[in-house]
Amino acid sequence: MPVTLAVDAMGGDHGPSVTVPASIGFLEATADARVILVGRQDSLDAALDRHKAKNESGARDRLSVHAASEVVDMDEPPADALRRKKDSSMRVALNLVKDGVADGCISAGNTGALMAIARFVLKTLPGIDRPAIASQLPTKKGVTTALDLGANVNCTPQQLVQFAVMGSALVSAVDGIERPTVGLLNIGEEDIKGNDVVKEAAELLKASGLNFHGNIEGDDIYKGTTDVVVCDGFVGNIALKASEGLAAMLYDFLRAEFTRNAATRIAAAFAYPVLVAFKRRIDPRRYNGATLVGLKGVVVKSHGGADALAFRYALNKAHAEVVNDVLDRIAQRIAAMPAATAAAPAADPRPMPNA
Amino acid sequence: MPVTLAVDAMGGDHGPSVTVPASIGFLEATADARVILVGRQDSLDAALDRHKAKNESGARDRLSVHAASEVVDMDEPPADALRRKKDSSMRVALNLVKDGVADGCISAGNTGALMAIARFVLKTLPGIDRPAIASQLPTKKGVTTALDLGANVNCTPQQLVQFAVMGSALVSAVDGIERPTVGLLNIGEEDIKGNDVVKEAAELLKASGLNFHGNIEGDDIYKGTTDVVVCDGFVGNIALKASEGLAAMLYDFLRAEFTRNAATRIAAAFAYPVLVAFKRRIDPRRYNGATLVGLKGVVVKSHGGADALAFRYALNKAHAEVVNDVLDRIAQRIAAMPAATAAAPAADPRPMPNA
Repeated sequence: MPVTLAVDAMGGDHGPSVTVPASIGFLEATADARVILVGRQDSLDAALDRHKAKNESGARDRLSVHAASEVVDMDEPPADALRRKKDSSMRVALNLVKDGVADGCISAGNTGALMAIARFVLKTLPGIDRPAIASQLPTKKGVTTALDLGANVNCTPQQLVQFAVMGSALVSAVDGIERPTVGLLNIGEEDIKGNDVVKEAAELLKASGLNFHGNIEGDDIYKGTTDVVVCDGFVGNIALKASEGLAAMLYDFLRAEFTRNAATRIAAAFAYPVLVAFKRRIDPRRYNGATLVGLKGVVVKSHGGADALAFRYALNKAHAEVVNDVLDRIAQRIAAMPAATAAAPAADPRPMPNA
Repeated sequence: MPVTLAVDAMGGDHGPSVTVPASIGFLEATADARVILVGRQDSLDAALDRHKAKNESGARDRLSVHAASEVVDMDEPPADALRRKKDSSMRVALNLVKDGVADGCISAGNTGALMAIARFVLKTLPGIDRPAIASQLPTKKGVTTALDLGANVNCTPQQLVQFAVMGSALVSAVDGIERPTVGLLNIGEEDIKGNDVVKEAAELLKASGLNFHGNIEGDDIYKGTTDVVVCDGFVGNIALKASEGLAAMLYDFLRAEFTRNAATRIAAAFAYPVLVAFKRRIDPRRYNGATLVGLKGVVVKSHGGADALAFRYALNKAHAEVVNDVLDRIAQRIAAMPAATAAAPAADPRPMPNA
């Protein structure tokens, strides 16, 4: 069965000039897929005129436009976007998922608004208090999946366990790892370390039936100690952003050393292919696409500044999640959770101003 | 007046084989300083036999040994180290500071034990609830000073303000910056971001008289957006360790690319001087030495795995703090704080099992 993805074509820093060519490239490479571009008809028509699909790929025939008159601003308060912009490209794309027209939604727009509107439109899965943001990060051994990366600033131990369950199901479904190892991000490996929330979460995780490795420290993320890294959104967001900042600084330093003088520029010429290979290996575009897990629908958030290549990775991610039945896998794992970790039946659909 | 430093000579992964040559090197380079090596007489005599000071430097004459029969293990619970090892090298070194025999103490030992024993022996400065761990980190612009990096897993808004005051005083005294800028680590710049603790801390910081920049995000650490970065010890420790892990991974990847095949090895030979310069620039040994701020005494914690060069940086740091009257500067700034941010008069001297 072909997979249909709804793309918030107006979202992100670049809007249709990125989302349209990325969608065409994705369709050219993915024979069974369809894309619905959601946004302003005139902007999308113009972008489609500029970016032609290769005729033989049939990509253009699998691409359609669904009009939406409004756009959520990148710095708009999520509650405003939810209340006032009923015809935003973001919301209409999510509605297409809710209505079963599309199998998943991809947006590079305002993260807090996407989370708030997705919760309102799609609702959370039974047994989940709050959705989380999950993303793959590179490690020495391959990749790890970390969550929450910013949706929930205050988490209960039960929520951390729910993140662990969702992360495990995601990794299991998409990466084909039967029983992914789960690490709880903490400031030491011993049981006595950490605050009360992580200590209680560790106890719950031991009894959860998950493949719980135990506490891990910050450096274990990039060592690849576990397949899943669980933390609250405050810590996760800061660790992720600190990593981005450090990588940017090191890259700047490396460039500065190679451009210091004539001799180092000659060295750079010799080293160029190696440096390109290094850069490709850590290219953040390859890791673009964070999954909003815990919703009754596949929703992938692209980095706001993504270029067309990066946005294609986010499309691939949503496609893989649909193909691998991530939603069902998460729902099954949640249903199999011990009662102590389950959420109250009625999840709160309020928007999250903090997200 | 000469500065006298008490060195916990048994601490760290390597003990006297690092602390003794580091102390000799430090004394050879620092004419006005004295060092008291604290530890087992036989171990220290043996290390002093192996590592000779240059005669003309007079270093050996400024180096003495103070016997202590016990050693705190690297993984010993802090409360045990505090209660049971009254004659540990760590505790005796701190006693020398308390008794005015030494001006500061340096240890590469167990961080939690050092913090617990230092609080018990030296007590906290008036107006400070709990000491914090502060360290310099490299940035695109130079350096920043971040605290707390792991001593306090749960912080009140008032404690975060105290960290800001102490960090400002430290940077002001040692780096000579009159009014250091202070950033509050958060998941967004806007006032509505973050948990209740950071939101209240931000309000208090605005009224603190400090040069408060506002909320900063994880990547601002390495951008060098502010001179001081304030966070609780849970977040700070995880961000720091994640950074260490990422740097190690990137270094591994770079080496892997340069040793991939004969062609890349030739490129590596050409690039070698540049890579050495790059490595020197980010050498973590240059940033070794975290300050335990908020105590009635200068205490610097070296990384447990530090080599002699790294340990010398920690000695230099303690020396600079003594010379620049950091303790008085912090006490003055604390005394000038608005009442809302001051600690209860009687600070709790219990050891911290979480540290």
